[in-house]
Amino acid sequence: MSNSSIDKASVVNRYLPSRLVSREYADAFAPSNIALCKYWGKRDAELNLPVNSSLSISLAHLGSHTNISHSETGLDKVRLNNKDLSLDSNFSRKVIAFVDLFRRGQKIPLIVDTRNNIPTAAGLASSASGFAALVLALDDFFSLKLENSVLSAFARMGSGSASRSIYSGFVRWDMGSQSDGMDSVASQLDNRWPNLRIGLIKVSSVQKPVDSRSGMNRTIETSKLYPSWPEQAGSDLITLEQAIADRDFARMGACAEKNAMSMHATMMSAWPPLVYWLPESLAVMHKVWQLREAGVAVYFTMDAGPNLKLLFEACSLSVLETEFVSMEVIQPFSD
Amino acid sequence: MSNSSIDKASVVNRYLPSRLVSREYADAFAPSNIALCKYWGKRDAELNLPVNSSLSISLAHLGSHTNISHSETGLDKVRLNNKDLSLDSNFSRKVIAFVDLFRRGQKIPLIVDTRNNIPTAAGLASSASGFAALVLALDDFFSLKLENSVLSAFARMGSGSASRSIYSGFVRWDMGSQSDGMDSVASQLDNRWPNLRIGLIKVSSVQKPVDSRSGMNRTIETSKLYPSWPEQAGSDLITLEQAIADRDFARMGACAEKNAMSMHATMMSAWPPLVYWLPESLAVMHKVWQLREAGVAVYFTMDAGPNLKLLFEACSLSVLETEFVSMEVIQPFSD
Repeated sequence: MSNSSIDKASVVNRYLPSRLVSREYADAFAPSNIALCKYWGKRDAELNLPVNSSLSISLAHLGSHTNISHSETGLDKVRLNNKDLSLDSNFSRKVIAFVDLFRRGQKIPLIVDTRNNIPTAAGLASSASGFAALVLALDDFFSLKLENSVLSAFARMGSGSASRSIYSGFVRWDMGSQSDGMDSVASQLDNRWPNLRIGLIKVSSVQKPVDSRSGMNRTIETSKLYPSWPEQAGSDLITLEQAIADRDFARMGACAEKNAMSMHATMMSAWPPLVYWLPESLAVMHKVWQLREAGVAVYFTMDAGPNLKLLFEACSLSVLETEFVSMEVIQPFSD
Repeated sequence: MSNSSIDKASVVNRYLPSRLVSREYADAFAPSNIALCKYWGKRDAELNLPVNSSLSISLAHLGSHTNISHSETGLDKVRLNNKDLSLDSNFSRKVIAFVDLFRRGQKIPLIVDTRNNIPTAAGLASSASGFAALVLALDDFFSLKLENSVLSAFARMGSGSASRSIYSGFVRWDMGSQSDGMDSVASQLDNRWPNLRIGLIKVSSVQKPVDSRSGMNRTIETSKLYPSWPEQAGSDLITLEQAIADRDFARMGACAEKNAMSMHATMMSAWPPLVYWLPESLAVMHKVWQLREAGVAVYFTMDAGPNLKLLFEACSLSVLETEFVSMEVIQPFSD
């Protein structure tokens, strides 16, 4: 991981008018996304530039709503899920630091109100949809009319995978090569897959012991298997795009599962070993493999946590609902 | 994996007299061994030549006793743990094929009687000690007086890790480079470590769904992370030898655990994913990590199966016996 000589603030500044003009109110929504080809490793920590391109499915109406309005008290206010947060909280500080990239010292005290409608049972991270919704809301609030690719790049600076949450459907985030990262942006694939389903299986809601950012760093610094990861991811991206274009479910599912297993493999070979799996995670994994042996077309993916996301088509829904009674089912192309 | 142009029979033949002279009876013992740096991947399937050097601890008196005597019926007889086996059984066929490398068509019908004293609770493979004991018994039975390095090479042709079971204590198997494999042999390290303990924790005795040989092949053919394995193993071997020489338990344990995790990581990134762990295995792993966080110097290693082998020193015995009530404790340097 190299550190860029370019800072976020100077990149954002290039796309903004010198003086901001603000509206009264802005509201935006961005979906959560689940990566089929994972983002795992940064080549630049300041700008969140990845070592590999990645590909995700956005989760339709599940994600973050953010609205922005003026604060009459003269102080910023940050709200999350209908509660005022302390300005010292981790969440508030991240939000305000990000908003400050846009304000650049201009005195525009704001109320930033975020509501996540991701079911608590889902075990999904909300930073991707959160930063995407914040960027969209800022764009609207300050009437910036930025292009989608710029919005994606800005969201990425908040949280890498937020670059993909600017879009619905299948989304590819190209790693890019420019030092300012402005070509490291996501775009939507044309393909739709109405029968595709995602089953969220939560095995634990305990806060993960090592956050993704630290997990990435530990893996890159200590795993001898990690250097093979970018090649794995690069080849998986090609396979996934082709499988999606061909609507070849088995190929897509197998590739997504292998990609997730390979990412976890790089973590396990880190020191100390980074194992996000719990015994219950492994039990679900073995059950998926048994079901597949029995002819059910179901695959899974997992992020840096113990929960699983099943991938299947509508035809397998009833058998899977019987096997996984607490599964929450998402239709990513429901609209 | 390349296939050598040299077959086992021609290699063995070079070390034998043209006509065998046999004794009445021979008896031999070879210990089981547990690898701290794993053998994972072959560069030659006929001769079991590995892609990396490895290092193990032999398990003192736990292993295989094999005795050989003449069969008066004119037919070979194979016995295992005091039972006659069918000559068609997998075990009998492997034993007879191996003995035939020595007999080379000479009519010497034999009774080969093997007894494993590895506790059934241990979840340990017996092919390493079994082939090592068989080689030692054949050497004695035919009064061959072969050098240890030759015995190690012959045992390796039966089962790779059997090369290490010729010796007690710490044993290093050098990968070698000759095409006939006669430099791919094990040797004993001088170092002893009387306080070292190995705790066997069996979580399942169910036959593993994929045998080690097939697992190796699948990993090499489908895992994109596997190419990094030989470098990992090479560096671990150096670390382990140094840690053993320095009697640095934390360094040895950490390296052995990382090596095992990395081997399992290569399997998990294979397709279909090769996961020997059961939920119970993962529960023991998490418990080991918790104990370590609490200051107990305990590490684990795992082979291609769900069971764990804990590594610790005598001073940690009582706390670990309380935590793992069914653990079987081995003193590898008990003699």
